Amino acid sequence: MLLLAMAKMKRPIIALLSDFGLKDPYVAEMKAVILSICPEARIIDVTHQIEKFNIRMGAFILASASQYFPKGTIHVAVVDPGVGTARRAIIVETSNSLFVGPDNGLLLMAAEKQGIMHVYEIRNRRYMLPKVSRTFHGRDIFAPAAAYLANGVSPKEFGSEIKDYIVPEYAKPIIKKGKIMGEILHIDDFGNLITNISEEFLSEMGMAEGDSVRVIFGGKSFEFKICRAYGEVDKGEPLAIIGSHNFLEFSVNLGSAAEYFGLKVGSKFRLEKI
Amino acid sequence: MLLLAMAKMKRPIIALLSDFGLKDPYVAEMKAVILSICPEARIIDVTHQIEKFNIRMGAFILASASQYFPKGTIHVAVVDPGVGTARRAIIVETSNSLFVGPDNGLLLMAAEKQGIMHVYEIRNRRYMLPKVSRTFHGRDIFAPAAAYLANGVSPKEFGSEIKDYIVPEYAKPIIKKGKIMGEILHIDDFGNLITNISEEFLSEMGMAEGDSVRVIFGGKSFEFKICRAYGEVDKGEPLAIIGSHNFLEFSVNLGSAAEYFGLKVGSKFRLEKI
Amino acid sequence: MLLLAMAKMKRPIIALLSDFGLKDPYVAEMKAVILSICPEARIIDVTHQIEKFNIRMGAFILASASQYFPKGTIHVAVVDPGVGTARRAIIVETSNSLFVGPDNGLLLMAAEKQGIMHVYEIRNRRYMLPKVSRTFHGRDIFAPAAAYLANGVSPKEFGSEIKDYIVPEYAKPIIKKGKIMGEILHIDDFGNLITNISEEFLSEMGMAEGDSVRVIFGGKSFEFKICRAYGEVDKGEPLAIIGSHNFLEFSVNLGSAAEYFGLKVGSKFRLEKI
Repeated sequence: MLLLAMAKMKRPIIALLSDFGLKDPYVAEMKAVILSICPEARIIDVTHQIEKFNIRMGAFILASASQYFPKGTIHVAVVDPGVGTARRAIIVETSNSLFVGPDNGLLLMAAEKQGIMHVYEIRNRRYMLPKVSRTFHGRDIFAPAAAYLANGVSPKEFGSEIKDYIVPEYAKPIIKKGKIMGEILHIDDFGNLITNISEEFLSEMGMAEGDSVRVIFGGKSFEFKICRAYGEVDKGEPLAIIGSHNFLEFSVNLGSAAEYFGLKVGSKFRLEKI
Repeated sequence: MLLLAMAKMKRPIIALLSDFGLKDPYVAEMKAVILSICPEARIIDVTHQIEKFNIRMGAFILASASQYFPKGTIHVAVVDPGVGTARRAIIVETSNSLFVGPDNGLLLMAAEKQGIMHVYEIRNRRYMLPKVSRTFHGRDIFAPAAAYLANGVSPKEFGSEIKDYIVPEYAKPIIKKGKIMGEILHIDDFGNLITNISEEFLSEMGMAEGDSVRVIFGGKSFEFKICRAYGEVDKGEPLAIIGSHNFLEFSVNLGSAAEYFGLKVGSKFRLEKI
Repeated sequence: MLLLAMAKMKRPIIALLSDFGLKDPYVAEMKAVILSICPEARIIDVTHQIEKFNIRMGAFILASASQYFPKGTIHVAVVDPGVGTARRAIIVETSNSLFVGPDNGLLLMAAEKQGIMHVYEIRNRRYMLPKVSRTFHGRDIFAPAAAYLANGVSPKEFGSEIKDYIVPEYAKPIIKKGKIMGEILHIDDFGNLITNISEEFLSEMGMAEGDSVRVIFGGKSFEFKICRAYGEVDKGEPLAIIGSHNFLEFSVNLGSAAEYFGLKVGSKFRLEKI
């Protein structure tokens, strides 16, 4: 059904994510390679501003964004500290999309959300650039793979199905003596602190919009409300809010929660209803 | 006539402006939503680097860029500190374009340049994502609205026409005892200081290229020439020039006028011919 | 043959490179002008993060990226400190591409790689915007030229062929008393130091992957190996590697070589096999 959806897409969508930044020729070379193989591809940038080598951040952004793309989208994601080593290149097929990238956990969070059907190792040199460099498999292996997939080549043609791909563990909130122990998953460009506490989990714990909560970490304690809009508190004041990806976020109205709280990605905290 | 121009565009252009930055999934999610609803859309980024919550800067950039887009372009602009509060979501129809965004003044400077025909409030849930988040109307309301407009849905279908939309006041240069009092509208990435003094206004005041001028502010005074090219002065030297948007700009050849003068957006100055 | 390749491209590719950054309306205005003249154009950003006025960096990135684009691509490159002066606007025709930009050397490194066939000065006002600003020929001259070329206008229509275009000199490695004297060409966003020593040159000098080398500059000396993957050395350790553009690069595994070595673009060093 996925391959059917792709066949119907006259101009297939290829979405790119990387930690390459935008000042170098790298992203453009990936796009140029894609268009050389599949001239009809439409290329959309997810982001190229993942922190260098931060697979966890890449996985989170990919998992967030990919669920909004049309069925049949091909995602190429490259945060690849192991480039050139024995780490494998893979294609993950879900019921909605194809994900292409290194076998280092980057693709799995996104793919698991959609339901993983098959994972193939990319081995067939026919679908790589004639010369594969030591340092840039994004251009030489992943971009061509995506373009050939967009041209209708079956994922099976690239290599054997594998079962032992790397599955990362992601921090889920835990309950300790009746208290929620959460973690900061991501800090966005506004300074919003996105936690790993989903709306569903919050609701199971008997908390909802309108409640006041206490957040405790590193000997400090903050009290604020779970709001429906940033504007419910004064400028510069903290709040919690169910963010756009259904996780609880800590924010500051017209300010940066990252600066206000001093929390970082990976920071742990205790949350309780007041 | 606008709707006719749009109907003729086989692949409608949707232009995006925001203060989201490029590292998060937000911009990509807007694009993914647009392509899910209107697969033929061509999406062009105006910029996503508007300073957080700076409606004035967003309005200036949108007004500058929008006049160069083809007739029938749909602009989505999101600088939205009031997201989730009672601030309305609107569609502004001009003789050239449709503008979609929050009712906070962001769209008006651009729309007024083209001639506002109608303003509609977006209320019809049918043209929003099934679940509208508290914090991201760019993805859940504005992007879908643009995509449905691109599909040919009439602006009237989204909600009632309104007349009391927010019209911001923009600083025009004033004349005080025969002297021009101007203001810095924008500082670009080169450090050029773009003033609110248009070429026409300058000409009415009897000034033109080739004249020498004095700029006075905060007890300091600078003298330089209105040049035809940066290269008319030595490296590191100041000049004035009619910029690419027909406003007088203060610049430094191969340098940053923002650093040289120490002026900021909103800074006021006196200008006189020597 | 190039024009034939372009004629076959239903939706011509126009690639953009500049030092404009992404926060201003400039890049969007170039795109808007292109789409107004050639609605079918597909626009790909190479980068807009070239350091302000750094023609050398622009030339390097353009030369790197352009070789991966499909035959018939039209490249527009604007790093243009001489805008508004007597510097000419040119179109360079190679056997693969057309390059449009200022006559300041920016286009030549890329064009020479492909083989320069003709260079034309852009003079015909018919293919410029009606009003040409003093400061933004990217929008008013180069973008329209690219769009008209994409529409099939012959380069000859823009102006006379010229032979005295500016040809920059680029630093080639030299051999002094049997030692290689190299130079840093570019530092990428990861902090990798890209040298001007090509894989071929290295091989001619009897060096290859697996060898250990000594790099000497400013009284300091570093020893490391030419590796096949960053991961061959420990985190934070230096290495050399044949990079993705076939130049020798100095890197640090999971770190920044620019910080580690303290070298800058243009820095010279001595390289010897141990």
